[in-house]
Amino acid sequence: MGEFDVIRHFFQRPPRRKDVVTGSGDDCALLRVPADALLAISTDTLVSGVHFFADADPLRLGHKALAVNLSDLAAMGAEPRWVSLALTLPEIDEAWLGRFAQGFLELADFFNVDLIGGDMTRGPLSITVSIQGVVPEQGALHRNGASPGDAIWVTGELGAAALALQHQLGQVALSNEQWLPLRERLEKPAPRILAGMALRGLASSALDISDGLASDLGHILAASGVGAQVELERLPLPPALLAQPDALRWQLALAGGDDYELCFTVPEVQRGALATALAGAGVKFTEIGRIVAGEPQIEWLYHSTPMTLTLRGWDHFKEST
Amino acid sequence: MGEFDVIRHFFQRPPRRKDVVTGSGDDCALLRVPADALLAISTDTLVSGVHFFADADPLRLGHKALAVNLSDLAAMGAEPRWVSLALTLPEIDEAWLGRFAQGFLELADFFNVDLIGGDMTRGPLSITVSIQGVVPEQGALHRNGASPGDAIWVTGELGAAALALQHQLGQVALSNEQWLPLRERLEKPAPRILAGMALRGLASSALDISDGLASDLGHILAASGVGAQVELERLPLPPALLAQPDALRWQLALAGGDDYELCFTVPEVQRGALATALAGAGVKFTEIGRIVAGEPQIEWLYHSTPMTLTLRGWDHFKEST
Repeated sequence: MGEFDVIRHFFQRPPRRKDVVTGSGDDCALLRVPADALLAISTDTLVSGVHFFADADPLRLGHKALAVNLSDLAAMGAEPRWVSLALTLPEIDEAWLGRFAQGFLELADFFNVDLIGGDMTRGPLSITVSIQGVVPEQGALHRNGASPGDAIWVTGELGAAALALQHQLGQVALSNEQWLPLRERLEKPAPRILAGMALRGLASSALDISDGLASDLGHILAASGVGAQVELERLPLPPALLAQPDALRWQLALAGGDDYELCFTVPEVQRGALATALAGAGVKFTEIGRIVAGEPQIEWLYHSTPMTLTLRGWDHFKEST
Repeated sequence: MGEFDVIRHFFQRPPRRKDVVTGSGDDCALLRVPADALLAISTDTLVSGVHFFADADPLRLGHKALAVNLSDLAAMGAEPRWVSLALTLPEIDEAWLGRFAQGFLELADFFNVDLIGGDMTRGPLSITVSIQGVVPEQGALHRNGASPGDAIWVTGELGAAALALQHQLGQVALSNEQWLPLRERLEKPAPRILAGMALRGLASSALDISDGLASDLGHILAASGVGAQVELERLPLPPALLAQPDALRWQLALAGGDDYELCFTVPEVQRGALATALAGAGVKFTEIGRIVAGEPQIEWLYHSTPMTLTLRGWDHFKEST
């Protein structure tokens, strides 16, 4: 097989969506965007040795590369529709490509997303995904709408992926029963698309937690011009993380990163509607604090007592929209 | 300056286009697509050491990274509107970033394109650009519409960039007068956006020449199920390329790559309209042959005599839409 044929074999499929007028194989993809919706676009790059280990299972890597982009759409309340994949590979390894494509396309199929183009290039292993979705203008979830009195919520659990990574790095010893479910959170995060869409018109602000709650909630506070109180004892943490020493627990839960859960704020008047809206989203959701007037800072409370936490950031100068 | 601030400083600007509802700084960009047009998307990656030299002038690199993507929109007849930039950098070098951003944004401004998001990551130098534009459904230029009897045309000149690269590699010696204009073609290609938009409804097929006419015209032939005759003496070549030995001349003109000119086919009935349509596109255009019935192959003619050409391909397993 020639190299073009290899790539076509693994990635090129006839369009499944009716709104794909032209898919792969021309100079551009041509897509039909509904007249009553906005186009939502986000792009993320994963680099070998920075975002994943060079020997990572390609099936899980394919899943994760798409999942982290879907998570950005979820944070906007958008419905995913199309995706472009730019893959830079040191060599053509058919076994690797087959598993990568499987992980990527299985998740794409789950959310009815069509792979509509991209690029394949030789070079150091790196994956850039650009995802496109649609959202009604009035339903879009922005970062700048939080008001004092709004409750702060998160989906799922925090710190699971970060604890799994510490185990992989040999910094923390977990039993197999602890490790296996956490590994899924690190390597196969579940983008909260249904939750994001359900929050349209309910949440006053939202984003996805990729760098850790402390940093990402900070983005909502800065954009909205408000402060926050977070009650540490309410944070939804996996049991294996609850068993860790205090400093490590808060570090991983609040600044570990790779959570890909949604953090969102809800006005009191919408509290009743929230449970109904999220009932079918397939993920638990937990109230962890409230928005307050003041400087864009987070006050950490533990059973009502203010705590000073020293969190180490993890900055690979990642800035993404 | 923190790393986020560096990036914001160079790349983040308030949206200029009114159809950008949300630009950089949220989880996704939100864009308004006109109801009567299709969304056109293309993605290209440039990798250091593969597509450009590691010490390339970042101003020119910024221009070229955007230009090659704009060229894909041009080939579709689309009007460019928005762009995402995923930049992977080994380190933060402010001087480099400043020049890269300048080259990228100057070309974006020229075509009234807004940078609406992307990603910045640490890793081996690589640039992935995803460009978005719009095109009326009936005006889009596809690869599969060429019919026997259509004339084959190209914009600009062929082989200029390839000859410049040979000079840079020390394989060909050019005078400064020869080299300087060719260098512009290699490092600052001019995407044929106006020509592409002017060809809506006129051209029966089109694409941009990135891998060389032989390979790219072959894509039109394969998609359309037709053959072609190309008259070598009609090819628009730069004078410095005309001065090269036969084998090298045809190699660079037909398989050198990096031309970023349009190749398109025009039915006889549209011949008269063509000159009028392209008069304002700012680029010359040359008839080089005709589409014929038969296998998707190119017959090379030199003053009506069939020629057998041996062209070396250059495959870095690049496959892009």
